Amino acid sequence: MIRTPLCDLLGIEFPIFQGGMAWVSEARLAAAVSAAGGLGVISAMNAGADYVLEQVRLARTLTAKPFGVNIMLMSPSAAEVAQCVAEEKVAVVTTGAGNPAKYMKEWLAAGVKVIPLVASVAMARGMIRAGAAAVVAEGCESGGHIGELTTMALTPQVCDEARATNTPVLAAGGIGDGRGVAAAFMLGAQGVQLGTRFLVARECAVHQNYKNMVLKANDIATITTGKRLGHTVRSLKNAFSRKYFAAETSAAAISDEELENLAVGALRRAAVEGDEKNGCFLAGQIAGLVQKEQTAAEIIREIFAEAEELLNGAGRWVR
Amino acid sequence: MIRTPLCDLLGIEFPIFQGGMAWVSEARLAAAVSAAGGLGVISAMNAGADYVLEQVRLARTLTAKPFGVNIMLMSPSAAEVAQCVAEEKVAVVTTGAGNPAKYMKEWLAAGVKVIPLVASVAMARGMIRAGAAAVVAEGCESGGHIGELTTMALTPQVCDEARATNTPVLAAGGIGDGRGVAAAFMLGAQGVQLGTRFLVARECAVHQNYKNMVLKANDIATITTGKRLGHTVRSLKNAFSRKYFAAETSAAAISDEELENLAVGALRRAAVEGDEKNGCFLAGQIAGLVQKEQTAAEIIREIFAEAEELLNGAGRWVR
Repeated sequence: MIRTPLCDLLGIEFPIFQGGMAWVSEARLAAAVSAAGGLGVISAMNAGADYVLEQVRLARTLTAKPFGVNIMLMSPSAAEVAQCVAEEKVAVVTTGAGNPAKYMKEWLAAGVKVIPLVASVAMARGMIRAGAAAVVAEGCESGGHIGELTTMALTPQVCDEARATNTPVLAAGGIGDGRGVAAAFMLGAQGVQLGTRFLVARECAVHQNYKNMVLKANDIATITTGKRLGHTVRSLKNAFSRKYFAAETSAAAISDEELENLAVGALRRAAVEGDEKNGCFLAGQIAGLVQKEQTAAEIIREIFAEAEELLNGAGRWVR
Repeated sequence: MIRTPLCDLLGIEFPIFQGGMAWVSEARLAAAVSAAGGLGVISAMNAGADYVLEQVRLARTLTAKPFGVNIMLMSPSAAEVAQCVAEEKVAVVTTGAGNPAKYMKEWLAAGVKVIPLVASVAMARGMIRAGAAAVVAEGCESGGHIGELTTMALTPQVCDEARATNTPVLAAGGIGDGRGVAAAFMLGAQGVQLGTRFLVARECAVHQNYKNMVLKANDIATITTGKRLGHTVRSLKNAFSRKYFAAETSAAAISDEELENLAVGALRRAAVEGDEKNGCFLAGQIAGLVQKEQTAAEIIREIFAEAEELLNGAGRWVR
């Protein structure tokens, strides 16, 4: 078995997080991942504290293992959700799309381990100083909100930064199977976070059309949009994402407000309605590697069996 | 020592290519890399056959080891350079920025091994069918002309495609030290190509200002430009690249021709004149990892010693 200090830190069996994906990472998926020995993560998305509380309590009925809540810091409800997870003493909070500094004290006081997603060395440095238990170096090959650096370039540079404080680093983005896990370890990571592969988990409640789109996707199936508004997002190419991309890059004047309105409800249309044309189907570049639906436990076991074999056999090229 | 079938295929000691960088990869750098046991590569950039012939002959006076020529297929001189390398029976041709299909027959007939840079699975498939001896899966974290996929996402998907024909895959982009090499091996690659790290090699003739800019760069020091004209390029952030980026993304109408004119001579101004403001300094996201000037031999030995240690010790996480 592959075990790293991150496993001991969080009380998990496999050093793998399931990414917090809006409209995707609900309590049932998170609980299934945690029950299987990883760290499941509930996405708070743009919802209020009521929703998060309900999800946390539901997950607790499904597993006694630790799990996390992902807070998208751009959410209008971020402050009330931040308070809710502190009150509930959730095991782990992962944060994305912003800087969690103002909530750190409250979380640390409540014993919550804070593990921010970072897109640069400077952000990793700031988060470690503020008390992060670990950081997730997330490359731009990920689905959803992304930065500029790739996993291959970002991970070792963040690891160099984290070394002085012995802070564990997880790698995220571009990891779809055991090869990606083994590569992440070579780059210096002690764990990984996967999103796209868990999208097709049997316990994931998204519409079957969403899963089918991921299963059919090839390597060039994704596109990035939203750069003009400063919130780049990676999703599957479809009528919606092509239309949005054309709107934000065309010479014709479209206001920022009109552009924002284009995207309203698009994640829900994808995940809940399975609207192949008008939904925004977040997914990473690794979608082309995702070939089959499996339970969360099957996914985790298969990935780590492959990674274990690769890491144990890595010396074979050295003569 | 790390040896893979790619070493035997090409008669090289270390499975590493030095990337073909316009105005950077001259005969002296290529010969130094080849003499050190890697595969040095001369960049034909936009030059004619006369220049390439002179460089090939110069390299042959400096080393008896095999080396390659990189042909940028967008070059107006691509056809005459293609003929020249066939006549000279250069050991290896690597190709970038386009599709080399129309030159393949001539090269193969001359015994030249053709190793195209590929940015997608479909391109890898086409090149393997056309007779490529290997392919370089180049991620968008690289400096210079880039595609959309990252090394972490692209490499395993290209390896899956190449498996049926047993075609070796090299990984390029985001590799700055032994960690990147070891990671590339875990992803399925049998070799690597590095550009940015060799930019600061003692045998590299670029202006010292260029080297200093790479040595000072951090993780977020690069920017991509040229997307509007369909030729995305990664370079260091400076007055030139910021101005170009502003011009191509601003609402103000600037013609494609004006945009192209902005870039004329910018690579030369960087590499030859060291013009920190007006030059275009191509470099990858890994520039932040490049800390010191070394000879090509020192770079190669250091990287592979680190990779060897990592690969030999990779089993330590498995308990």
